[in-house]
Parts: sequence; C-alpha cells; structure tokens
Amino acid sequence: MTYCLAISVNKGLVFASDSRTNAGVDYVATYSKMTTFVFPQNRSLVLLTSGSLATSQAVINAIKTDLNDPDAEFNLCKGKYLHEVAKYIGQLSQKEQKQHAEAMEKSKASSESSFILGGQIAGQPCEIFLIYPQGNYITASTETPYLQIGENKYGKPILDRIVSANTSLEDAARCAIVSLDSTIRSNISVGPPIELAIHSNNVIEAPYRTSLSNNSVMYKSVQKHWNEGLKRAFNKLPRFDWEKPSAK
Amino acid sequence: MTYCLAISVNKGLVFASDSRTNAGVDYVATYSKMTTFVFPQNRSLVLLTSGSLATSQAVINAIKTDLNDPDAEFNLCKGKYLHEVAKYIGQLSQKEQKQHAEAMEKSKASSESSFILGGQIAGQPCEIFLIYPQGNYITASTETPYLQIGENKYGKPILDRIVSANTSLEDAARCAIVSLDSTIRSNISVGPPIELAIHSNNVIEAPYRTSLSNNSVMYKSVQKHWNEGLKRAFNKLPRFDWEKPSAK
Repeated sequence: MTYCLAISVNKGLVFASDSRTNAGVDYVATYSKMTTFVFPQNRSLVLLTSGSLATSQAVINAIKTDLNDPDAEFNLCKGKYLHEVAKYIGQLSQKEQKQHAEAMEKSKASSESSFILGGQIAGQPCEIFLIYPQGNYITASTETPYLQIGENKYGKPILDRIVSANTSLEDAARCAIVSLDSTIRSNISVGPPIELAIHSNNVIEAPYRTSLSNNSVMYKSVQKHWNEGLKRAFNKLPRFDWEKPSAK
Repeated sequence: MTYCLAISVNKGLVFASDSRTNAGVDYVATYSKMTTFVFPQNRSLVLLTSGSLATSQAVINAIKTDLNDPDAEFNLCKGKYLHEVAKYIGQLSQKEQKQHAEAMEKSKASSESSFILGGQIAGQPCEIFLIYPQGNYITASTETPYLQIGENKYGKPILDRIVSANTSLEDAARCAIVSLDSTIRSNISVGPPIELAIHSNNVIEAPYRTSLSNNSVMYKSVQKHWNEGLKRAFNKLPRFDWEKPSAK
C-alpha cells in the first residue's frame, strides 16, 4: 500500500509520500512515489503515485518519452492550465491499464493506480489534482485544502484539525509529516523514508525537497515532540467525577 | 457504518460505541450498538455490534429468546469460559445470515455483522473477543490490548500511542472517547452519542455506563481540551532550518 498527501495553502503547496511498496506480504521494497518535473519560469510540477507500481512507472516513462518526442501530441510542457495536464496523465494511466486488462483480470490482480498532480504553471494559481484510476480527476476545495491517495484514513484526523488555507507552508509540512508518521505507526504497509516537497506560490523553480528516513534528525525530533505533546495533551483531559483532580 | 472499540487493561475493560446507522446516504438514524447482559455475581457481559442492523438485532433477539427458554441448548448464562459465549454468538450470527443469504445475494446487499463481546465470568479473567461475520473469533493480546469493529482506521493511531496493559481504566476510557471523537470528525457515517461502559476487574455487576451526546459536559470538555492540547503539541514541533526559532 501507500500513503501520499498534497496540501494546498495560500502560500503554496506541500507534498508528502511514504516509500514502501509490497506485492502481497512477502515482497516488500522501498520506492520513491514522488517525481518532480521542473521547467524553470514555465512550470513546476510534482507527481505522487499510489496503486500498481507497474502502472505508475509506465505512466512516468510515458511522460518522459513524450517530453523527448518532438512529435508528441501533448506533453507535460504543453497545456495552459494544470487540469489539462491532469487529463493527460489520466489518459496515459487508462491507456497503460487497458494494455494489460485481460491478463490482469485472468490473474484477479489490479493494475489500478491513483495519482496526485500538483504545482504551478507561470501566470496560473497553485493547484492540486487527484487523478482516479478511471482517468477522471478532482481538485481540492478551500474548506478541505488537501488530497490523499492510498491509506488515507489513519492520517486524516490531524489534517482535519490543523490544516486550513491560512496555514503556513512550514506548518502544513509539519502536519504532513505527522499525518504520514501516524499512518506509518498504525499500518505496516506504509513505511519510511517520508519524502517531502514544498512549492512556494509564484516561485516557478524546483521545489524544496527532503527525504526523512528513520535516522533523520528532523524526523526523529518531530516524532519525539509529537509523542510527548500528545501525552501531555492526553494527561490534561478532564477527570471522571470519581477521580481525584488531575495534578497537572 | 459504525465504530466500536473495546480495551482490555489490567484493571478491567472499557467499551465504547458510536450511535449512527445508515442505509445508503439517505436513511440515517441513531441506534445504540451497546447491549449489556448482567447476572450479578455470575457474569457481566457487554456486546457491541457493527454491520447489518437487521442481523445485529436478530442476534440480540435470539440471545434474549434463549435466555427465556428453559429448554435452550445454550444461552448467555451457560458456558464456563467467555470463548464459549463468543462461539455461541458467532453461531447465532451465521444462522441468521444463512436465513436471508439467497435474498441478500439477489439484491447484492450484505447481511454481515461483526461483534465485540467482552466481560467477565466469576472466577475467570476479564476478556474481550472480536466475532467475525463468519462466526469465528479472536481475542486481544497483551501487546495490542484492544479490538475494533467498523470504521477502525481513523481512531487507531491514538490507541497505538497511548494504550497498554498498565493504562488505568479512566485513561483507557478517555483514550476511547478521543478515538471515537477523531473518527466522528473525519467520517460522517460515525456519529454521537458515544456510549461508554467501564467494567472493573472482579466486580461482577452492571458496568459503569454513560452516554456522551454533543451536549454532554464531559464530551465537550474532552473535545475542547484535546483540540487545545493537540494545537499546543503541534506548535512545539521543531522548525525547519530557515525558520525563526519557535517563540514557545
């Protein structure tokens, strides 16, 4: 499984993804699920992938092939609006899945992949899109300024409590790390390193990127502070009538 | 949907359940999913239900019918061990589902129900069991001292961080409320009131029970303190290199 997340705030975009893939329980591996495509001053895009690794990799290969093919009908550099790029990726995904549909059905396996595409085209606002396995797509809303793919439930409560359009980029990034970390602790199919990308509004360059492994100072510090903070918060919860008042 | 939870600690057992049921999105209702069966000095049992409301209600009716039938082969009062009672409930559930299997298949609906049974038989330890729709069942472990049915993912991270066998009954109950509240905030198919039951080890009487509606002083206080505590914890997370040090 996988857990990927994109958050859209007024100041820009935050992307986060885990790095564990598995085929059944006995073939577990570490793969990046975050790819950046940067064309300075023109567009800066981040693509997160979840689902069939074969489909995800094939889509990324097709994107790269189209970029190198001067005769390609469309590529990542074309399209004035980000939703045109989302549509293109949905089409690549569907095309790839259809090639293997019959064989996949026979083996009762799934070749479905979901994607989050986000970034900014010069002159346009920052945007994020969730592209479904069927090729259609949605964007986030002001009220729910994030999109998730994969194992999305464990890490949702903290997003619902913290994130709004006014959240700073750094706070959104910290919230993403906590959301990923909560998922990693509760679900063995989601694992480190956590990849993080931060795109500042109207900075059409490579986003800030970092990878948080279990040994990363930042990741260890977030884990420690969050764990301690949660326990402090928990210890301050109200007592039942029959309990002595809390000493805290 | 539903979210029910049982926690087993050294001092006893905590049970919690939400109260929302829905058939599709347009028939939403409030039903208790917690039933207690108390035979003082003999056994005190709590049953939590999730899944098909028809199956859950039929199982509870069958339990009550057997209790009033002197010729019943087995009933809740019989059985020296709690796992025998779990097996009995699994059998009632399977029997009920089989009666409607053909019709349910035709309408592509599910009559599956899951149950959590917990409590204590005099002279035996406190125990909790998760009874699957197929009638088989599992108990908790010292390492993972809780069982969940229904929408279990949103509320799992807090359990994984807080609960162990040494947790006090009151802390386990507070953790249950937070776990339910996080789920209620993130999933519209889970809703208040939260029903709570606390069974103290070796007290074979009716458990302490309370119902936390949105207007409950205790529930409002937990929500307020938890929200504030989480935000405080969040604000103390480490800064990125380029940020000014936190003022806190």
